[in-house]
Amino acid sequence: MHPEDLLDVIRRYKGDRTVLIKKLPEQVLVDIINQAEDQEKVGLLELLSEDMQKGVINKISADELVDLIESVPDEEAIEILNKIDYNDIDEVKELMSYDPDTAGGIMTPDFIAINKLMTIGDILKYLRSEMSEAETAYYIYILDDQDSLIGVVSLRDIVVNDLNVQVSEIMTENVISVPVEMDQEEVGHVFEKYGFLMIPVVNTKNKMLGIITVDDIIEVLQDENTEDIYRLGGLHEGERVAGSVRDSVKRRLPWLFVNLLTAILAAATVGLFEGTIQRVVTLATFMPIVAGMGGNTGTQTLTIIVRGIALGELTFENAKKVLLKEIEVGMTTGISVGITVGILGYLWENNPIFGVVIGLAMLLNMVAATFSGYVIPVTLKKLNIDPALASAVFVTTVTDILGFFFFLGLATIFITSLI
Amino acid sequence: MHPEDLLDVIRRYKGDRTVLIKKLPEQVLVDIINQAEDQEKVGLLELLSEDMQKGVINKISADELVDLIESVPDEEAIEILNKIDYNDIDEVKELMSYDPDTAGGIMTPDFIAINKLMTIGDILKYLRSEMSEAETAYYIYILDDQDSLIGVVSLRDIVVNDLNVQVSEIMTENVISVPVEMDQEEVGHVFEKYGFLMIPVVNTKNKMLGIITVDDIIEVLQDENTEDIYRLGGLHEGERVAGSVRDSVKRRLPWLFVNLLTAILAAATVGLFEGTIQRVVTLATFMPIVAGMGGNTGTQTLTIIVRGIALGELTFENAKKVLLKEIEVGMTTGISVGITVGILGYLWENNPIFGVVIGLAMLLNMVAATFSGYVIPVTLKKLNIDPALASAVFVTTVTDILGFFFFLGLATIFITSLI
Repeated sequence: MHPEDLLDVIRRYKGDRTVLIKKLPEQVLVDIINQAEDQEKVGLLELLSEDMQKGVINKISADELVDLIESVPDEEAIEILNKIDYNDIDEVKELMSYDPDTAGGIMTPDFIAINKLMTIGDILKYLRSEMSEAETAYYIYILDDQDSLIGVVSLRDIVVNDLNVQVSEIMTENVISVPVEMDQEEVGHVFEKYGFLMIPVVNTKNKMLGIITVDDIIEVLQDENTEDIYRLGGLHEGERVAGSVRDSVKRRLPWLFVNLLTAILAAATVGLFEGTIQRVVTLATFMPIVAGMGGNTGTQTLTIIVRGIALGELTFENAKKVLLKEIEVGMTTGISVGITVGILGYLWENNPIFGVVIGLAMLLNMVAATFSGYVIPVTLKKLNIDPALASAVFVTTVTDILGFFFFLGLATIFITSLI
Repeated sequence: MHPEDLLDVIRRYKGDRTVLIKKLPEQVLVDIINQAEDQEKVGLLELLSEDMQKGVINKISADELVDLIESVPDEEAIEILNKIDYNDIDEVKELMSYDPDTAGGIMTPDFIAINKLMTIGDILKYLRSEMSEAETAYYIYILDDQDSLIGVVSLRDIVVNDLNVQVSEIMTENVISVPVEMDQEEVGHVFEKYGFLMIPVVNTKNKMLGIITVDDIIEVLQDENTEDIYRLGGLHEGERVAGSVRDSVKRRLPWLFVNLLTAILAAATVGLFEGTIQRVVTLATFMPIVAGMGGNTGTQTLTIIVRGIALGELTFENAKKVLLKEIEVGMTTGISVGITVGILGYLWENNPIFGVVIGLAMLLNMVAATFSGYVIPVTLKKLNIDPALASAVFVTTVTDILGFFFFLGLATIFITSLI
């Protein structure tokens, strides 16, 4: 049975988990805890006796252990650190020194490294003795005396070559690696680009520090995607669908109050024109159309720009062309929608000038919407702020305010023709 | 140089690409075309002479070839099919028979399969002769006489065991596989769950048809994420940030006209209350606050529900609990925001009843927003429609209409106290 399926059984088990877990051999427990979510790891560990905890902690892979330690309060972290064997503690501490969102934060230090003078026969012998340790033996890295990365061979290369061939004859020398401080999202792009199963991580001196495997990258990409989707939707990235009411309220309220401020700005814009609305009350009826259509046009542009930045498809090279494209799209769709709404307004009020006012306001607002849907995320990106934080809220604020301003402003100018 | 980097060079090359490409050996061309995007593949093929085209087409892996054929117009597809060798054509045609969004559509039929009576020594001999063919030899599948999948061994298992061991002694018998018709997004979840490098694909009789590798899954997950983000933002999933104006307008306009219909519904709701607005024109000023806050509250719930469904975190088991949670969140945040806006309205109009009307409308609308932010995507999911299509547009329509209805309706009831 796969550890992940055993984990599912434990998750669904209604009885006393302590009894269930004590029946499992230590290696199976280690595999299960390696697979579990960070919070689950803690819960599972707590079910074990002190002795068993110590045994398991020293067998979990170092990177999983660091994730575990970083997810618990300081006191518990110290307790776990105290249970780690003297030999392993330096490795764990080194891993803890890297920012969790970088290559260093997601790499594992368990990789197979050899000397370039070894033959295939030597490597096979070495693998048979070491294999139980390294989970990730599909690639074998060749280091020089300073631990600098000088080559890589795959297990396939080893299998298909003769035993007396020296590894230096068959190794690939241009190894693609990532620097230890590279952001994890960028590491994800490297995996996407090359389709690798794993990538070595090096420091500035090309010393090999660890490897990142593709299964960890899938998690990274999913987390980054969730973060973007959440931010575009005005949610804090830490929220979970099955979380508590208290947690959700605490995370959503600040965002709603930011939005309240922006809504008040939009309301204040309308407030400037109360006199005009008093005289032509149908203006109030058409307000939601101008604001709504502007908001949606802006959200369309915002969405494609934010995603384009995340996927690396919007670059310095095509940025200006994309901006011009978006504005042209705003003009073209603005003319179509503007004429439609203009006719609607004309028929509703039986007044062609009313049609011109609403149609023109719509066109102006939709062009402004594509412009701000581009400029807001691109500016945030330049300021090194996540462009997804631009979120619909800020763009719709602009389109609300400008929409009301154009519509009610034009109505004020043409007021004598509207009454 | 990695083929992906060569591809980058070709992409950026300003001169005559035909000259550049003709200098490359056939195998390098094949590797480059395997890596290229579908549309690029066609462009690259067109640069080659008829003979070279034929050579390359017959060396591209069958799954990439099918992607290529499916991305071009029928005429070109037939031309390509005609260039395929007689031996390979059945394989290509079989692959083409599967829906591109299923396991069958993304699998490759190139995998290594052996008989259970083979020894490690036999396998190594076999691998040395076959290796150039199979890209994906890290797992070797054991089939019975009916081609049913009965076991798997990893290349690691082979390397660490003695030459005379029979594969049936060391193979894992409970092989996790996916059915050929499984949706590609679900296949992605299987990879995420188990952290596999590849998964075998079987038909209903457990006959092995192909394998899916993790690098293809990364693409699938990114595409599915882009689709969700685009749909939530009111975009067609086929749009690209660097696409043409014509293409963007064609894809966005239908969506904007759907939105125009919903905006007209909201406007019509306001139209019902023109008499009330005429008497208390400040109502028009506060309209954007009720609508905007409701829209954002609804979008928050919608976003977490759509993402929860996509990640498999919202299940039948916790669905009811999540609905109740969302409504409770709507009530709690609605009370906070309602009181704030109520006080603001009271001070603005210097009339406590105006404060009560706007505050109460806000509370009601925010509860309705969380309810519809849950119900709309969940209902779509039950109808087998992508819940992301619910998109902010539909939820904000509900919150616009209900918001105006609550606010202007309450104002109409209390009209005598508001004048």
